[in-house]
Amino acid sequence: MELVHYSLGTCCSFPRIFGHEAVGVVESVGEHVEEFTAGDTVLPVFLPNCNECSDCESQKSNICSIFENNFSPEMPRDGTSRFKDMNGEILHHFLWVSSFSEYTVVDVTHAVKITPEIPVDKACLLGCGVSTGIGAAWKVADVEEGSTVAIFGLGPVGLAVAEGARQRGALKIIAVDLNPEKFNIGKKFGVTDFVNPETCGEKSVSEVIKELTNGGADYCFECIGLASLMQEAFLSSRKGWGKTVILGVEMHGAQVSLNPYEFLRGRSVIGSLFGGVKPKSDIPVFAKKYLDNELRLDEYISHELSFQDINKAFELHQEGKSLRCIIWMDR
Amino acid sequence: MELVHYSLGTCCSFPRIFGHEAVGVVESVGEHVEEFTAGDTVLPVFLPNCNECSDCESQKSNICSIFENNFSPEMPRDGTSRFKDMNGEILHHFLWVSSFSEYTVVDVTHAVKITPEIPVDKACLLGCGVSTGIGAAWKVADVEEGSTVAIFGLGPVGLAVAEGARQRGALKIIAVDLNPEKFNIGKKFGVTDFVNPETCGEKSVSEVIKELTNGGADYCFECIGLASLMQEAFLSSRKGWGKTVILGVEMHGAQVSLNPYEFLRGRSVIGSLFGGVKPKSDIPVFAKKYLDNELRLDEYISHELSFQDINKAFELHQEGKSLRCIIWMDR
Repeated sequence: MELVHYSLGTCCSFPRIFGHEAVGVVESVGEHVEEFTAGDTVLPVFLPNCNECSDCESQKSNICSIFENNFSPEMPRDGTSRFKDMNGEILHHFLWVSSFSEYTVVDVTHAVKITPEIPVDKACLLGCGVSTGIGAAWKVADVEEGSTVAIFGLGPVGLAVAEGARQRGALKIIAVDLNPEKFNIGKKFGVTDFVNPETCGEKSVSEVIKELTNGGADYCFECIGLASLMQEAFLSSRKGWGKTVILGVEMHGAQVSLNPYEFLRGRSVIGSLFGGVKPKSDIPVFAKKYLDNELRLDEYISHELSFQDINKAFELHQEGKSLRCIIWMDR
Repeated sequence: MELVHYSLGTCCSFPRIFGHEAVGVVESVGEHVEEFTAGDTVLPVFLPNCNECSDCESQKSNICSIFENNFSPEMPRDGTSRFKDMNGEILHHFLWVSSFSEYTVVDVTHAVKITPEIPVDKACLLGCGVSTGIGAAWKVADVEEGSTVAIFGLGPVGLAVAEGARQRGALKIIAVDLNPEKFNIGKKFGVTDFVNPETCGEKSVSEVIKELTNGGADYCFECIGLASLMQEAFLSSRKGWGKTVILGVEMHGAQVSLNPYEFLRGRSVIGSLFGGVKPKSDIPVFAKKYLDNELRLDEYISHELSFQDINKAFELHQEGKSLRCIIWMDR
């Protein structure tokens, strides 16, 4: 199981069980559940996929209609909690996964069956960040061969965007990050150029990117969640067909302020949750690509800890030292 | 020749010759011009199309690289004026067309050869507004059969969007306009529902549109040029795949302020100048469609006047009484 420090303004119900990138084995299934049986290897996911609503039926959307309740701290659909502490008091769910626990309960729409062939420490990475970045490059932006790409924020989501863009044959992959150490890490994932906003001098980041790309990048990805950076990404995109993809979740409630005139030159902005990935159909494909050596996962794992050291994992994350830290529940 | 009242903050050089939706016959060509010969029927257009730059070569852009000089009041490329008044003083160009004149001079990249079979009073309509609306529906939004469409502003551009959406088989075409008379006009072009912001009561326009479309329109088109309306259009779009197309030119310098969270639900915003139309290749196709009875043009003509009555045409436009008023230069 893998750790992400995640906070959402709407998720302030405590006590609760965190964790949302994980893999596990089905212990038992509820009534009427036919999709899974005990013993199946499954990936719990924050984004539901009912395969029955108009969004699930369309190839254009991954926003299943069950995903409507604004990050409720309870189970989807019936709104209950399935956890209690030793005194019988309710513990809340987190993102419908709650994987910092030996056992969890997830709705059938929030679980994806995957092949048990994929090692668990690699599989869990597909539960959010890596899939989001790969999906954004492949499904949302549909990056073309020979194109230029600018990635704002080089955490694992941004690295996965780079990996996805590299696989599509992008010619130039520019990463923007305040941490200069990220450039060497990024190179492994396909990053070719690095822009540190603190060393741009008089120029804005978008001006530097426009110089590097002869007028603007074909694709820009905002992977942090800052409205100001979304604006800078938009300004870094090329006229005519420049596409800015918003992946980061803006936590401060800020609006993104964009110049209509820049839009009129043919630019576009598209947002995506989970990189446009449809959990039940796309994640098994990603798992197979890993097993076929067509998708990297090992390189995201910077640390491994046992569950009892989970607070150390939070520290590493907050200090910017870890990419992904595997939390082993049984060690 | 056909009249549009157009003002741009960057176009304050006077005296100048206005007019930018027109058709004419080539009187003579400059040195090295091989594309046209005297006697050709041509449509002058504000958007250049050099067919040599990377944007012209790409199917994804119509923003020819010559279009860079922020609505200069002179000829493109050499920056000169080709008009003088009777005292020898310079008259400025307007949008590189300047068609309120018996003779004009346009750059070769700003002229499109069309068939002389199309009547001139219909042909001139293809020079801006109608092509913009049709292009936005067909090329930018790529409206799908059975979809829902919301159009903000029902001038000729909005009507042309409706026509384009109707031809693509849109199920519901909702028009938003302050002028209730526009509904009857809109019906001819495919409008099925009408929302008057002044009679929405407590509800916002986007709330009304969400009710009419079971959650939001598949495609929203802003055809006026108001940042606040672009925001409302965005909020009227459906989660998952809702696309907002910005056609209107925001003249007040306002930024469009959008909620990143709404983007994350899969919504997108794309801007387009001239509806994504590539003048030299697309306008002849539109002209042929008119001749084949596959595209309406006659219905946009609400008035016809002689050139000496041009001020009457401006009045009709400002009073919201005209759709398109043909100005006959020779009557």
